[in-house]
Amino acid sequence: MSATIAAKRLQNLKHHLAPNDDPHFESLRIQRRPEQVPHMSKLDPLQFLLRSALVHTHKPAIIHRQQSYTYLELSDRVKSLANVLIDTYNVKPGDRVAILCQNITAFVDAQFAIPAIGAISVPVNTRLAAKEIDYVIEHSGASVLIIQQEFMGRLSEESRSLVNHVIEVADCDDPTKDPYERLLKSSKNRLSWNDMPMEQDENATISINYTSGSTGKPKGVMVSYRGAYMMAIGMAIHDMLSSKTVYLWTLPMFHCNGWGFHWAIVMVGGTQVMLNKLDYTYIWKLLKDYGVTHYNGAPTVQNEICNHPDAVRLNNSVKAYSGGSALSSTLIRRMTNLNLEPTQVYGLTETYGPAVLTYDAHTLSPYTEEERHKLLARPGFGIVTADEVRILNVETARDVKPNGKEIGEICFTGNLVMKGYYKNPEETKKAFRNGVYWSGDLAVRHPDGSMEIVDRSKDVIVSGGENISSIEVESVIVQLDEINECAIVGGPDDKWGERPVAFVVLKNNSNLSEQHIIDHCRNSLAGYKCPAKVVIVGEIPKTSTGKVQKFVLREKLWKNYEKKIN
Amino acid sequence: MSATIAAKRLQNLKHHLAPNDDPHFESLRIQRRPEQVPHMSKLDPLQFLLRSALVHTHKPAIIHRQQSYTYLELSDRVKSLANVLIDTYNVKPGDRVAILCQNITAFVDAQFAIPAIGAISVPVNTRLAAKEIDYVIEHSGASVLIIQQEFMGRLSEESRSLVNHVIEVADCDDPTKDPYERLLKSSKNRLSWNDMPMEQDENATISINYTSGSTGKPKGVMVSYRGAYMMAIGMAIHDMLSSKTVYLWTLPMFHCNGWGFHWAIVMVGGTQVMLNKLDYTYIWKLLKDYGVTHYNGAPTVQNEICNHPDAVRLNNSVKAYSGGSALSSTLIRRMTNLNLEPTQVYGLTETYGPAVLTYDAHTLSPYTEEERHKLLARPGFGIVTADEVRILNVETARDVKPNGKEIGEICFTGNLVMKGYYKNPEETKKAFRNGVYWSGDLAVRHPDGSMEIVDRSKDVIVSGGENISSIEVESVIVQLDEINECAIVGGPDDKWGERPVAFVVLKNNSNLSEQHIIDHCRNSLAGYKCPAKVVIVGEIPKTSTGKVQKFVLREKLWKNYEKKIN
Repeated sequence: MSATIAAKRLQNLKHHLAPNDDPHFESLRIQRRPEQVPHMSKLDPLQFLLRSALVHTHKPAIIHRQQSYTYLELSDRVKSLANVLIDTYNVKPGDRVAILCQNITAFVDAQFAIPAIGAISVPVNTRLAAKEIDYVIEHSGASVLIIQQEFMGRLSEESRSLVNHVIEVADCDDPTKDPYERLLKSSKNRLSWNDMPMEQDENATISINYTSGSTGKPKGVMVSYRGAYMMAIGMAIHDMLSSKTVYLWTLPMFHCNGWGFHWAIVMVGGTQVMLNKLDYTYIWKLLKDYGVTHYNGAPTVQNEICNHPDAVRLNNSVKAYSGGSALSSTLIRRMTNLNLEPTQVYGLTETYGPAVLTYDAHTLSPYTEEERHKLLARPGFGIVTADEVRILNVETARDVKPNGKEIGEICFTGNLVMKGYYKNPEETKKAFRNGVYWSGDLAVRHPDGSMEIVDRSKDVIVSGGENISSIEVESVIVQLDEINECAIVGGPDDKWGERPVAFVVLKNNSNLSEQHIIDHCRNSLAGYKCPAKVVIVGEIPKTSTGKVQKFVLREKLWKNYEKKIN
Repeated sequence: MSATIAAKRLQNLKHHLAPNDDPHFESLRIQRRPEQVPHMSKLDPLQFLLRSALVHTHKPAIIHRQQSYTYLELSDRVKSLANVLIDTYNVKPGDRVAILCQNITAFVDAQFAIPAIGAISVPVNTRLAAKEIDYVIEHSGASVLIIQQEFMGRLSEESRSLVNHVIEVADCDDPTKDPYERLLKSSKNRLSWNDMPMEQDENATISINYTSGSTGKPKGVMVSYRGAYMMAIGMAIHDMLSSKTVYLWTLPMFHCNGWGFHWAIVMVGGTQVMLNKLDYTYIWKLLKDYGVTHYNGAPTVQNEICNHPDAVRLNNSVKAYSGGSALSSTLIRRMTNLNLEPTQVYGLTETYGPAVLTYDAHTLSPYTEEERHKLLARPGFGIVTADEVRILNVETARDVKPNGKEIGEICFTGNLVMKGYYKNPEETKKAFRNGVYWSGDLAVRHPDGSMEIVDRSKDVIVSGGENISSIEVESVIVQLDEINECAIVGGPDDKWGERPVAFVVLKNNSNLSEQHIIDHCRNSLAGYKCPAKVVIVGEIPKTSTGKVQKFVLREKLWKNYEKKIN
């Protein structure tokens, strides 16, 4: 089926069973347990799938190249995977199941099937190097890994021996040749939805999302069923998702559970268009032929979309959330010219993704373009299902004055804040002080209540929407015997926003080359984390108490730029 | 300010504070309590108001004739009322505050201010007679009554002595002449949001909604903060509410807390247009001049809108939820011709209003008009924040077969089900059997999972969207000494859908007139509950065990109609 045929299918399919069709209602029901009170149900994204299988039965839930799956088919896939995880792979409630896949159907299947049996999903960043993958597998204690075959080369012997089972996904166009599809087909579907050992507590952990924080080793952010549900609701309300939505998966699903979008689109009965690679020619084909209404991505992605030779002004406007770093006025203008409607969002893995959203377009309509762009650069306000963010003075933990000047650290509370870091009570304790979660990012509060980021946490670099821990990169560089000292900061980059730059002090008499240092990094770090440039210096600037003054290094790199951040 | 000026204000207002405006952020913050965990917040509609006062500060939240209030002004009104309730009227957490008002600003103020101090709102149906109002006041134990002056004539001496305080609202165009507005102005605003004694448990009661059920005396439906929040979310998602929404208050606010719309519109930062009376000339003026995008009402209201001489096809489509009874194909067509988009909804006070919604328009687009109208007559499916409805065999309490034939009773579970009836454990126990809430309405389940109502609970008549308990009317009629026996059923009525009809057996030798019986009812019942017709008969049909066979009476009245329900 060509892309055009898939697009037609999307437009023409009769979305519903005629009344004389086969009944499917009985198979989509979860019986309540006797201990449940009649007037309460657990907030659980799985409810969205069962409802949409009932209400939007024959509507395309997922389109991926030649394949498309209706809501009834998606719910059947999820049921099959859930059964196989229990019967073939012996997954028990509370077990961790890791996912190392691109934005393909198996990922969506897994994000419903794993919680359906009370287990916990662990999405893994597909850009990680083998050693980094080892760390996530080992730390999470995942007993099963669902892995796309093209990443098998990065699966070390160590990881293989740590997990009990590896489920391979071919992601090929012929389902009969995909071991994953054969596995689903082999499911005996012994358990109905009713019989599955679902979690009953909405505050239990639904997923662990590993993030590079400021302390080097990835931390496992534990998010809850309640939070996942409220994030999906928040995205649906702000992004105006509906059964007409056709969502294009430009945002990696492994980032904060895809900002909740695989759950949100299923909730409203929209269609998700998978995308295993950021192929911008294909993306433009999809934008033009599939009636895409929404997509999300970092400014880098937005920029590539705008710069592509196939770019034309679209007939219908397409909503695009942009996060990771700030959208420039130029990019906002270019997107708008193509009928792409950008919205600046802000958040962290610890806040389920974008818990903060800029002013809405309607609200800003009375302003001039210049005023609008200035206001749009502020991430703005907490979303409806979040608490309002707080900006606290880092010394006193008191709210800063809303004067647009006093700088404080962005802090979060509420239903869109993680439960804590998995098996890491020390970092959890550090992150939650004074009853709030401390993000590490610095901001001011304007008199109208909106917040504006002025500097990111000293130790995080954001490159193409990916967080890079400067400490992690530093710890790899100092493994080299010839290195005396090292400091990594973000330098400006036209394409990626920022790229890591290493300032290095060599030991006496060493003549180690810059390229050698970069090559060394490539051996144990994902490519995007490796320094774009190494600067060998005589000393690293420090305070009188010996603290590295990264701002001094950053100033050198950013001297021709208005801000010290991208 | 004329309606046109108000409309202009709606369109042209600069919605935001410029950065150099007065700061208001600090006054809109609720400090969290030390015992709260950082990753959870209570689901509470009040959060919507504080957020919108921050985000949509200078946008019109409310328009009522000459007055309009921005979000900041609305939050100030609410804060003033909350303070006055505590300081002047001594309202304590858990106290009940009754509201007897039309759809005016004071009602919205009260629905935020009462829960803001941990008290419980008790909206009273403005159509009730004095004795019925007495019952609600006495049964709820309300200590304060907020009453619109035009209803003072229906406030009995008894009710006056039961409540400690009466707050009068003039609803006049000059605020300086309105005692309620003067009261707000007099507030010392001693307590900030922070200091208010807010409820901390999301499962606590936010409001008690009195309904005429099937057992005569009104029952007090207790709804929770969590449920109110989830209802508002559900309405926002399905009705596509946004900051562009201009909502017209054709639906009475006293009905199930206005189906959650005063909370939902505030959540999205839309504008609510008040409407104290169903003046259709004014409604058409508002539809044409104010850019109304949404309104709700019973089929009677929809019909009056369509029939009005000012009716013209609107430039922009307006979404209209219709509940209470089924929309006819004719009415659907007439609404569509005027660019009104009707959606059939179903629910009860016990389910926060419309917990069930028909197929969405997009889903039905592939069908012919005839097929569509047939499908649209089914209320359909539970909304996203509700559990799917169940239809249980009344004898066995097992789910009926999804064959479109087997009849069962509609049952509910989940976050959109009431907590129970206030001070009425017997009725609560009766309503909650087998772990579900039994609605009393009868339906079938179609093979595609949608449900269709086939008969209403035997003892309820729905007239112009209002429930009438036949038992309540019967108990009033049999107060007359000359009455031997009486049975009330709903008869067809072109305007109201149904109207009560009384079948009466007189005692021997009595020559009581039909009109006398109607006049007697008018003394103690709201007008809409009084029989439209009295039929004096020799006997009432009964089963062998002596149960009244109301279906026999209904058949007489409905013999030329396809269904026995409107």
